[in-house]
Amino acid sequence: MTIDHAARRARLAAALPAHKVPALLVTSPVNVRYLTGLVSSNAAVLVRADGSALLATDNRYIDKTRALDVPAVEASDVAGRLAAPGVGIEAAAMTVATFRRLEAGLGEGGKGEGREGGEGEGGGLVPLGPVVEELRAVKDEAELELIRTACALTDQAFADVLPLIAPGLTERALARLLDNRMTELGADKPAFDTIVAAGENGAIPHHAPTDRELRAGDLVTMDFGARYHGYHADMTRTVCLGTPAAWQHDLYDLVRRAQRAGRHALAPGAAAKDVDAAARGLIEAAGHGEHFRHGLGHGVGLEIHEDPFLGPSRTGRLEDRVPITVEPGIYLPERGGVRIEDTLVTREGGPELFTKTTKELLVL
Amino acid sequence: MTIDHAARRARLAAALPAHKVPALLVTSPVNVRYLTGLVSSNAAVLVRADGSALLATDNRYIDKTRALDVPAVEASDVAGRLAAPGVGIEAAAMTVATFRRLEAGLGEGGKGEGREGGEGEGGGLVPLGPVVEELRAVKDEAELELIRTACALTDQAFADVLPLIAPGLTERALARLLDNRMTELGADKPAFDTIVAAGENGAIPHHAPTDRELRAGDLVTMDFGARYHGYHADMTRTVCLGTPAAWQHDLYDLVRRAQRAGRHALAPGAAAKDVDAAARGLIEAAGHGEHFRHGLGHGVGLEIHEDPFLGPSRTGRLEDRVPITVEPGIYLPERGGVRIEDTLVTREGGPELFTKTTKELLVL
Repeated sequence: MTIDHAARRARLAAALPAHKVPALLVTSPVNVRYLTGLVSSNAAVLVRADGSALLATDNRYIDKTRALDVPAVEASDVAGRLAAPGVGIEAAAMTVATFRRLEAGLGEGGKGEGREGGEGEGGGLVPLGPVVEELRAVKDEAELELIRTACALTDQAFADVLPLIAPGLTERALARLLDNRMTELGADKPAFDTIVAAGENGAIPHHAPTDRELRAGDLVTMDFGARYHGYHADMTRTVCLGTPAAWQHDLYDLVRRAQRAGRHALAPGAAAKDVDAAARGLIEAAGHGEHFRHGLGHGVGLEIHEDPFLGPSRTGRLEDRVPITVEPGIYLPERGGVRIEDTLVTREGGPELFTKTTKELLVL
Repeated sequence: MTIDHAARRARLAAALPAHKVPALLVTSPVNVRYLTGLVSSNAAVLVRADGSALLATDNRYIDKTRALDVPAVEASDVAGRLAAPGVGIEAAAMTVATFRRLEAGLGEGGKGEGREGGEGEGGGLVPLGPVVEELRAVKDEAELELIRTACALTDQAFADVLPLIAPGLTERALARLLDNRMTELGADKPAFDTIVAAGENGAIPHHAPTDRELRAGDLVTMDFGARYHGYHADMTRTVCLGTPAAWQHDLYDLVRRAQRAGRHALAPGAAAKDVDAAARGLIEAAGHGEHFRHGLGHGVGLEIHEDPFLGPSRTGRLEDRVPITVEPGIYLPERGGVRIEDTLVTREGGPELFTKTTKELLVL
């Protein structure tokens, strides 16, 4: 399946009149990639309301633009090369320093010229919200196929590493095994810094792996994923070393039921806060509300965390074809924790599950 | 060696009067780490001209602040919690969206209040340049020890992987061997995405490893480094698979001489462009000026690329105790390339070399 970048730019162009700008200067690297296919650390693309576009990048990447379907110019100051009076900019991607530099540049001629021009074309740059991010939330089938593959690599890496999880292995060594297996299987790289949290460290939602060794009696939480052609997978499983104690079994069972409720609430049209509440309500009813202090999930795509987000105070509703995670967790200070996370995609007939590793409690 | 964060904040406080602000709102994550020791993805610290400071971070990281020597408050909007009228902000770290949100918040009371206050305290936020980055360029001995260790891990990983480099190995597999060895030896993680470029791919300075197999006759360039306690190493070596052809030998010899000239030009007080010229002049004299299109080097520390930068149009002079890379390269389209890079630190008596792997042409 090939990606149709021109169609994406056409969708963006169609959205510009509502924002009252003649063009958008896109500087977020991931948005430039989305709209043109160029992977770089220094590029910008100007997309105009008529659907035409101009890309700018520096001499390190200019050769790569020859294979793209958009004209490109070489520049070291990529945003400065494309900035023009009245053009929209991505306020969440551009720094204050760049904005002031560009505005000063326009002031030396372009901006003044623009000010004398017609309505909507004059003045400086126009800071806009997440225009491209909103387009990106709903994926096309080519993107879903890449996320599906990233998730399959993640599942396979877990299956391959599972027999190696045993007392004596350190959190760091286990994280390395997962990372290596994902890249051996064909991942670009890990989708984010892999979390491995054993025993009491499981009480820290964003624990960074240490040299602590796994021990019998530990719950061990692994939060990891593969990146494949730029698209991300995200999965968490908690396993038990040895027969679980009653509290471990009960905690796991509660999180599993909450995660299932969250998955079942995923649907086009569902409110983000209602999906969160479907899972959180079970955890609160069991008296663990204070031990689940993060949102239920987040969109995944070219970024590991992207719109939409699921949480008690999130607004908005889900659309069709939105890949998203469902990841409740309960964290008991000093004792440990359980988190179970899948990546799924909303579908009219019910969500499609991308991460297929079992959610039975694995006792190793 | 322990790091004295209070001394760093005192140096920053002493620099504030020159910028005419009563305090700096630091939001760059690496600068927050530098000034407080807190490693997080969501924190800010307000450092006042009297040397006092207040840290803000969210519920994921608040527990970690108890071990620090600076008071902390919990907030999800960390910058909003600390923003105040007339305070400086880091223009290169803050986005336009955050700046506008904070200014709007101050306008609802704080800003107006400030406007009625004394000179220099009123108005909105004051965008400032790289105030903390300038302090960070010169390292203390505790930092140099961490960079020295990061470079030693890099050298050791190269030595350990060298016997495994042979025809049939792919670029990706070789990159993975280097990455794994660095983390096994104790690195936090690779300092950046490891570059392995074989044969014709060596003509691309920032080549990302592919499934191309190494072949007899290839020059193979490896650009990699370890990160250790947040500090980075950066080293490049080019080796030859089989006896080098005359052009390969000559190219290597030229880059090696240019790299040596660059290293010898490193000294406190040297102009950044003169250090670049010392190496570039040899390459230009040999007729390869057009094949060396990047700068000669960059500072390293908590970031892999930080001030100062060495290049033909760079201004400024080096100071004492500045870790920096020297990395000339020659890239011949379709044929291949050579790059040799060390990390060193400027010293009064001559630079100290951190990456000690031989620069003789290794024929494998």
